[in-house]
Amino acid sequence: MSASTDLALIRERRPLVHQITNFVVMNETANATLALGALPVMAHAPQEVEEMASAASALVLNIGTLSDDWVEAMLAAGRAATRAGVPIVLDPVGAGATRYRTEVSQRLLGELDVAVVRGNSAEVATLAGRAAQIRGVEAVGDGGGPELAREAARALGIVVAVTGPVDHVSDGVTVNAVANGHELLGAVTGTGCMSTAITGCFLGVRGDDPLAAATEALVAFGVAGEDAAREAKGPGSFHVALYDALAALDPETIDARAR
Amino acid sequence: MSASTDLALIRERRPLVHQITNFVVMNETANATLALGALPVMAHAPQEVEEMASAASALVLNIGTLSDDWVEAMLAAGRAATRAGVPIVLDPVGAGATRYRTEVSQRLLGELDVAVVRGNSAEVATLAGRAAQIRGVEAVGDGGGPELAREAARALGIVVAVTGPVDHVSDGVTVNAVANGHELLGAVTGTGCMSTAITGCFLGVRGDDPLAAATEALVAFGVAGEDAAREAKGPGSFHVALYDALAALDPETIDARAR
Amino acid sequence: MSASTDLALIRERRPLVHQITNFVVMNETANATLALGALPVMAHAPQEVEEMASAASALVLNIGTLSDDWVEAMLAAGRAATRAGVPIVLDPVGAGATRYRTEVSQRLLGELDVAVVRGNSAEVATLAGRAAQIRGVEAVGDGGGPELAREAARALGIVVAVTGPVDHVSDGVTVNAVANGHELLGAVTGTGCMSTAITGCFLGVRGDDPLAAATEALVAFGVAGEDAAREAKGPGSFHVALYDALAALDPETIDARAR
Repeated sequence: MSASTDLALIRERRPLVHQITNFVVMNETANATLALGALPVMAHAPQEVEEMASAASALVLNIGTLSDDWVEAMLAAGRAATRAGVPIVLDPVGAGATRYRTEVSQRLLGELDVAVVRGNSAEVATLAGRAAQIRGVEAVGDGGGPELAREAARALGIVVAVTGPVDHVSDGVTVNAVANGHELLGAVTGTGCMSTAITGCFLGVRGDDPLAAATEALVAFGVAGEDAAREAKGPGSFHVALYDALAALDPETIDARAR
Repeated sequence: MSASTDLALIRERRPLVHQITNFVVMNETANATLALGALPVMAHAPQEVEEMASAASALVLNIGTLSDDWVEAMLAAGRAATRAGVPIVLDPVGAGATRYRTEVSQRLLGELDVAVVRGNSAEVATLAGRAAQIRGVEAVGDGGGPELAREAARALGIVVAVTGPVDHVSDGVTVNAVANGHELLGAVTGTGCMSTAITGCFLGVRGDDPLAAATEALVAFGVAGEDAAREAKGPGSFHVALYDALAALDPETIDARAR
Repeated sequence: MSASTDLALIRERRPLVHQITNFVVMNETANATLALGALPVMAHAPQEVEEMASAASALVLNIGTLSDDWVEAMLAAGRAATRAGVPIVLDPVGAGATRYRTEVSQRLLGELDVAVVRGNSAEVATLAGRAAQIRGVEAVGDGGGPELAREAARALGIVVAVTGPVDHVSDGVTVNAVANGHELLGAVTGTGCMSTAITGCFLGVRGDDPLAAATEALVAFGVAGEDAAREAKGPGSFHVALYDALAALDPETIDARAR
């Protein structure tokens, strides 16, 4: 597993990352994808999602502002992705906050061949069938630790990334902990969604190893967060510096900075 | 009335502010809400708006890029909010600019128990049945002053906040004038929508006194605008500094800075 | 042709620019429009697009995240614009990437009286019936040069602006080359869409000469890009500085800076 190698591959190959995501963060996840070195494309029309997903190197599904039309688009794109061997990452934004979000997340997981789920502790606990506390789309309470990631990965049979002060990524056996990041990431909306998009970028070059891809993505995003925080005066300037930091990530040093 | 006390309460309680708003400013109002210290959540699906609105501390309705599906979502969320005792603030973006916007604003006001309307002088004048000049979503001409706020509050029977170079907030009897702010607020799209979201944050802790909540929100937002302008080189850097300034607002000094 | 004169006119008249555009860039094109000095308005409901387009000085159509409802709104707004003598600029985002985008672009061009098409080389080549390579919404390979702009303008019978490292604008006879700009424009999503919105701003005061309007817009946007790059540390800070630079564009010097 090497974030260095895979970041260099992203910059070289520029994988196309098809994103069906929420209205709040579309610009932000597109810019994070582009800053890292990959190519984002947003498309949700039933007439084109299959064609676009099939042409992509990874598919990102995010239910942050879902509605039935969009869920149908996610399902169609997801099926096409699976047929074409394109890896899928799911961000179950707000699962547990409303029944609709929980049910849609379960349906996407049930009907599609998802490679990675990336969520906060409450969203992942909900999908793993455990009690969870969530307010809106923010997890309340402690993060569940490595056990939650492992249990959820076993329950769902896929790689699960639980992000929080320390992130945990598991395939049900191994659990990787990533301590990179900065508390200002919690002060900007959509940074969770960005980390999911970045996971899509790494899946675009490392689809054969979702555990590695998801872990490397969180290292890269966390390191960029640390760099961005250095000159930030608050959430606004941090947000701006985050794109600069993603673009400036150095494949030579990133493995050494993983914590 | 104390912006100091209520800002401290927002930081302590982190009220959940459910926003059904326009595509242009969703990221911006979410980030302004988060920077101030509250928790934003965006949701518009008919399957979940009632559940989300009922769980929130305030509901923000904004018609900036409306369509029939979204209006239905606003009505459903609004009814659930009223049943649950959750205060509602309405931003009638572009009322007067097209018949559709005027009619939808009137329908929302007629069918829902709205606590505060926040708009520019042309939008408010339209809703109060007075002649108004609007180009797109920008008011033309002078702001109508305290009389417009008072008359509109009487006509509608709720608290009305008219923003402009000087803001006026009235419950039909009292009129509070707020002179805080900076002209660069007019050079960034969605700052009016942000002030409505901030009003939602204050309503989330001061729902029992909408006149105070709306006034305090405009003081807080205006003071943040003044702070942001200090280091801004133009609308882009001002926009960024505005989030930093909202996060840095000091409950200890904000009452003293109200103008 | 004078960008100086027309920029001064934009600042004086503040033309209303109605934009039916994609979810990814709505905030960005609104802010670019406002920073330049014009007034943006976003509206897509069938109940209001005709009224809004008729009241505008220019109409911007952008298919970046299209779906059938939005295409119908574009057609209705476009017909109303034509009846009212309001010039239209079309951004065929991703034409060539999916059949749906190609067909919708062709339909909009066929049914509406479009004044200017602004796209990258792959999008324009697709519409001109030439072979093209596109990944997502990014053109691959060299830009086609002045010949592509001229040929497409002849094939479509309207003004065509092909943007890339050097932009080419043609009415089928004349070809204007614009070398202003900076490579960081390619590192931020939606800068192409912004250049289309800026074209709408210039059409709003120079609708009688679409070749001049489109050329001046690309000079203005390119010069702003050069100014923004001077203090940028990466794509995030460049993006912010771009709005500052658009607002700071000096009508006195802009003609002299055209390259």
